[in-house]
Amino acid sequence: MFESKRKRIVGLIGGGSCDEKTAQIAYNAGVEIANRGYILICGGRAGVMEAGCRGAKSVNGITIGIIPGTDPNEANPYVDYPIITGLGIARNAIIAHTAHIGLAINGAYGTLSEIAHFYNIGKKVVGINTWDISEDLIKCSSPVEALEIIDRILGVGNE
Amino acid sequence: MFESKRKRIVGLIGGGSCDEKTAQIAYNAGVEIANRGYILICGGRAGVMEAGCRGAKSVNGITIGIIPGTDPNEANPYVDYPIITGLGIARNAIIAHTAHIGLAINGAYGTLSEIAHFYNIGKKVVGINTWDISEDLIKCSSPVEALEIIDRILGVGNE
Amino acid sequence: MFESKRKRIVGLIGGGSCDEKTAQIAYNAGVEIANRGYILICGGRAGVMEAGCRGAKSVNGITIGIIPGTDPNEANPYVDYPIITGLGIARNAIIAHTAHIGLAINGAYGTLSEIAHFYNIGKKVVGINTWDISEDLIKCSSPVEALEIIDRILGVGNE
Amino acid sequence: MFESKRKRIVGLIGGGSCDEKTAQIAYNAGVEIANRGYILICGGRAGVMEAGCRGAKSVNGITIGIIPGTDPNEANPYVDYPIITGLGIARNAIIAHTAHIGLAINGAYGTLSEIAHFYNIGKKVVGINTWDISEDLIKCSSPVEALEIIDRILGVGNE
Repeated sequence: MFESKRKRIVGLIGGGSCDEKTAQIAYNAGVEIANRGYILICGGRAGVMEAGCRGAKSVNGITIGIIPGTDPNEANPYVDYPIITGLGIARNAIIAHTAHIGLAINGAYGTLSEIAHFYNIGKKVVGINTWDISEDLIKCSSPVEALEIIDRILGVGNE
Repeated sequence: MFESKRKRIVGLIGGGSCDEKTAQIAYNAGVEIANRGYILICGGRAGVMEAGCRGAKSVNGITIGIIPGTDPNEANPYVDYPIITGLGIARNAIIAHTAHIGLAINGAYGTLSEIAHFYNIGKKVVGINTWDISEDLIKCSSPVEALEIIDRILGVGNE
Repeated sequence: MFESKRKRIVGLIGGGSCDEKTAQIAYNAGVEIANRGYILICGGRAGVMEAGCRGAKSVNGITIGIIPGTDPNEANPYVDYPIITGLGIARNAIIAHTAHIGLAINGAYGTLSEIAHFYNIGKKVVGINTWDISEDLIKCSSPVEALEIIDRILGVGNE
Repeated sequence: MFESKRKRIVGLIGGGSCDEKTAQIAYNAGVEIANRGYILICGGRAGVMEAGCRGAKSVNGITIGIIPGTDPNEANPYVDYPIITGLGIARNAIIAHTAHIGLAINGAYGTLSEIAHFYNIGKKVVGINTWDISEDLIKCSSPVEALEIIDRILGVGNE
């Protein structure tokens, strides 16, 4: 099967603006996502999304941005494939449907709606300094720890 | 202005299935929403949504259901106006955009995504026995209390 | 069954701006739609949509507007129930899914996408001075003729 | 600017099933799209879409599929990046927003809605054996001719 050869996709979710420390975490997360062979999908904008894409591109990863508006220039410069939806906040559902798992870093209500979408359709989210909504969300303290958990969840049983 | 004469719209959000006690609360919420002259908008399906619509119709209220699939029969029988979206979970954004305020009763991850959408676009949610995500969500213990708060929020300043 | 008692819905589709003669046709179409007991659904904006809603309201019909943006004030003043989607042109699919049949009057490419959606999901469109795409589209020359055809199509066999 | 270095995207639109001759045209179109350095975006399913993706992949092109349902297995095996929308026919708008130009081959009403979306938002469509809706649509008789026109339209002035 061709499908099984496609790379797994990690949904990086987090705020459209963030402080420097959070950006560093997101950058490192992007590096880890790419280094382990995952595609990074996100909302394509600034903040956590841009830092994560920048990290992924620093190690030649692949980045997809699901853009809410109709202007391709909304995409941050580290998005390889900007998907222009024009759907506004409804585009959040596409990230949850497309990714195999979510990785949430900080974030506000947009991030919360994403986390909710992932669990609503039976997918998991690993979180760093993000919404503490229930024991479903898998908390961890660093990008490396987060990606080790993601490796395990998407691992053997999913091949 | 014609617009200012339109009735205010309350978004009733909650699970597609629920126990009898929750259904009774949702029914009473529907009665209160309609009696105070609000239109009830919801996801149009069973559980909290159906009980609320049934309550609203018992006092001749108006009910709108934003249906996720493409089959009009997904709408519960107490929906006056089923809006058939075919958008799946992305339809949740429409409820947040259309309602002036949300009223959440219990609910799982679909409800959580709705609450997040409301706050993401700057609207408020009043909640009964629902997600305790932050102090933003306005907790209350009965439909009457919830609607009194909604009256106050949508009140004078919004006319 | 409660469902079978809901009023049938006619999707009025046409340009967001139009000349006076077209507006008169749309107004008359709105009158006919409402007088025959149908709900009028449309894109909720100006031009053909506004004239049709104005006609429907002149005889106490019911009007629903599926608004592309996020601002309720995009709705023309004759829309009873503005559904705020934030979906841009993707909202056209909702009109096709929700209406039982389409009535196209003049119109440009937005109207053409609507006509295509209706036929794509197995519904019919009656047209006045609109796109001549194939023999599928049912051409007629006046609102009265159009509604007589709609009555026939939605008639006996659909009760 | 980083944005200007992104590859241009051609939206391949056409039916989800097609005869062998049409599949050959679509395959050749995919080859031409990829050989000239464009990304191919499409609805991701069978028929014209699959043949086009197969052509593009035969010369190591890049293919994106905007999937209507929620099942990644809806994507044909030649899609590199399946974007899972769950939006049904509303996903057609995403293809028009994301592509810089459309290339329509045969096709039925889904294809027509796509062509309409492209023109509705001010983009052009080149067509082979497809809907003859107006003189706007640029007719041509082969994939090579189509791509020469696309090169010209997306050419110098767009760099």
